[in-house]
Amino acid sequence: MTIKNVAEYCGVSVSTVSRVLNDHPDVSEAVRARVMAAVQELHYVPNSSARDLVRPQSDAIGLVVRGVGNPFFTAVIRAAEQAVNRAGYTLVLHQIHTEENELLAAASLARAKKLRGLILLGGCFDYTPEQTAALDIPYVCCSFTNSFGSLGNTDYSSVSIDDQAEARRAVEVLLRKGHRRIAVLLDSIRDHSISELRYRGYCQALGDHGIRLDPALVAETGDFDMAAAYDSVRRLLERKTDFTALFVIADSMAIAAMKALHDGGRRIPEDCSIIAIDGIEMSTYTVPTLTTLIQPQDEMGEEAVRILLDMVEGRAGNRHVRLHTTLRAGGSVCRAN
Amino acid sequence: MTIKNVAEYCGVSVSTVSRVLNDHPDVSEAVRARVMAAVQELHYVPNSSARDLVRPQSDAIGLVVRGVGNPFFTAVIRAAEQAVNRAGYTLVLHQIHTEENELLAAASLARAKKLRGLILLGGCFDYTPEQTAALDIPYVCCSFTNSFGSLGNTDYSSVSIDDQAEARRAVEVLLRKGHRRIAVLLDSIRDHSISELRYRGYCQALGDHGIRLDPALVAETGDFDMAAAYDSVRRLLERKTDFTALFVIADSMAIAAMKALHDGGRRIPEDCSIIAIDGIEMSTYTVPTLTTLIQPQDEMGEEAVRILLDMVEGRAGNRHVRLHTTLRAGGSVCRAN
Repeated sequence: MTIKNVAEYCGVSVSTVSRVLNDHPDVSEAVRARVMAAVQELHYVPNSSARDLVRPQSDAIGLVVRGVGNPFFTAVIRAAEQAVNRAGYTLVLHQIHTEENELLAAASLARAKKLRGLILLGGCFDYTPEQTAALDIPYVCCSFTNSFGSLGNTDYSSVSIDDQAEARRAVEVLLRKGHRRIAVLLDSIRDHSISELRYRGYCQALGDHGIRLDPALVAETGDFDMAAAYDSVRRLLERKTDFTALFVIADSMAIAAMKALHDGGRRIPEDCSIIAIDGIEMSTYTVPTLTTLIQPQDEMGEEAVRILLDMVEGRAGNRHVRLHTTLRAGGSVCRAN
Repeated sequence: MTIKNVAEYCGVSVSTVSRVLNDHPDVSEAVRARVMAAVQELHYVPNSSARDLVRPQSDAIGLVVRGVGNPFFTAVIRAAEQAVNRAGYTLVLHQIHTEENELLAAASLARAKKLRGLILLGGCFDYTPEQTAALDIPYVCCSFTNSFGSLGNTDYSSVSIDDQAEARRAVEVLLRKGHRRIAVLLDSIRDHSISELRYRGYCQALGDHGIRLDPALVAETGDFDMAAAYDSVRRLLERKTDFTALFVIADSMAIAAMKALHDGGRRIPEDCSIIAIDGIEMSTYTVPTLTTLIQPQDEMGEEAVRILLDMVEGRAGNRHVRLHTTLRAGGSVCRAN
C-alpha cells in the first residue's frame, strides 16, 4: 500500500494526499475527509523514511513538567503536544516532582535525547545565568518568568500571565463586593515563585483600598497539594479568625478549600466568598461554580511551541509573551454583609 | 565536570555515582542524597554518549492516549512515564481525540519514531487481527481489553480492571442499601467499549436482584465529556422518571452529574445516592465526597510498562493482567427511604 494507491483510490493527486497527511491548511474539508476515509479503509500507514532522509537531525522537543498531576497543566500539555506534532516534531515528555531540579532534569534530557528545543512547564522563577548555562539549546519558560532571578530579558523566553497583576485583579473583585476581611490561601509567601507573586498582588489590592494586611489571614500550605490546601483551611477556621472572603492562588486548591469550608460549617458564598485563578474544567462543576480568572491554557501551550520553534528554526530570538485571564463569574462570590 | 569529579567531591566511587544516576536500588538513601546534592551543587550533567554507543537502537516507547483531557489518565500517564524513564527508555507521547483512529495513529508513530514498543491508553475494545496487523512492534492495551473484538488471547497484551464485574459490584452497593429504582449514566449502551461493558454489569446486578431494566432510567451522553454528562442528568430529571440512586461509569462524569442533581434541586444522598468507578483525586473533594470504586492508576501504568518491556527485551510474550478496585465509601450513598 503506497501513497499512490491512496491517491488513485480517492481520485486526487499524490501531492494532495501528502498535504492532507502532513496537515497542511490548503486542502478543502471535503477532500481532507475523503482522503482520511481512504487512508483508514486501506489501512495505509504513511512511510516516514523519505522525511528521515532529508532530516537527519533529531526532531525531538522536550517538555519537562514540574508538578506532576497539576490539573492546570493537562490542557497546556495537550495543546503543546498537538502543536509540536503539527509542526512535524516529536514531543518527549518528562514529568518531575516540584522538589526536583527541573534544570538538571532538562539538561540531562537534552543530551540523552538530542533535543532540538525545550519547554519548561512550571519551573522556578529565580534562575541565574550560571544555572541555565547547562541548557545549550533554545528553551521557553511556560507559565512562569524569571521575576526573582537574574537572567536578562534576552537570555530566555517565556509565556505566562502577569501573576501579580492577575492576583490583584482577583482580590479586587472581592473588594468591590464590599469584602474587607479577605483571607489568602497559597503555597508560601516566600517561595520565590508563583505563590509569592500572587501574594504580592493580594497585598497590593489590599493596599489600594487602604486595608492593613493581617498575617492571621494568610494560610500557607507549604505545598500545591489539594490535601494540604484542605488542611490549611481547616486550621484557618479553627483559629476562629474572622473573614468573609478567601482568595486562592489556584483552582485545584480552591476546590479543596471549598470542601474544607463546607466541612467546617461555612456556606459558600453566604458565609465566605471564594475566588481563584486558573479556570480548569473541574471548577465549573463545584457547587456553587467557582468564580475564577481563567488562564488561556490552550493558547499558553501553543504560544510556547511557537516561540520555541521560531528559535529552533532560526526565525527569531528570545521573546516574552504575556497572556491575559478572563473572569468567569461563578456562584462563589457574593456581596459582603 | 565529569562523573569522577562528582565521585571525588562526595568521597564515593565512580560506580556508586553511576548507580545513583541510573536509579539502581542497591544504594543507601544517605549516599543517594549525598551524591544528588553534589550533582546539583556542581551542576553536573550526565553524559549519555557512552550509553548511546552501546545502544544504537532507538529507545523510544510510544504512549498513544485516546481521550484527550480524561482526568483518569493523568495518574496513569505519570506512572507509565516514570517507569519508562527508570528503565532507561524514552517516552514519546501522542494524545488523540476519541473520534480518531488510535491504531492508525499508533502505526504511524511507530514508523516515524522507530518505536520499540507501544502502550495504547484508552482504545477500542473491538480490534480485528487485520486492524492490528499494521502494528509490528509489541504493544499493550492499557485500561481496556478486546472484549468485543476477534483477537486471540495470545495476540495482544492488556492491563485493565474487569469492567463488567466492577460495574456489577458498584450497582450491588446501591442495591444492598435498598435502592430499586437505579438510573445509569454512560456514554452509550452500544459503543463496543467500556461503556457497554459497564452497562452489562449494571444490567447483571439488577438481574441478580430480580429487578426489571427500565430504559427510562438509562441516560446516554454520547460522549465522555463532563458537559454532556451534566446535560444528560438534567434531561433525566426533566423526564420526571422516579429514581433514588444513580450509577455513573466514570468519576469525572459523576462530578458533573452531582452538579446537575444539585441544580435540579436534588440533595445528595438524601434524594439521590450516587456511585461511580475510577477514584480520581478530584472526586475526594466533591460535597459530599463521591463514593466510588478506585482503580489502581499507578499500578496500571507501571504494569503496562512491565508487560511491554518484558516483550521488548525478550523475556516474555503477550499476557493479560486484571487489576481490582477498592471501594471508597464517601458520603454520596445512603439507604433508600
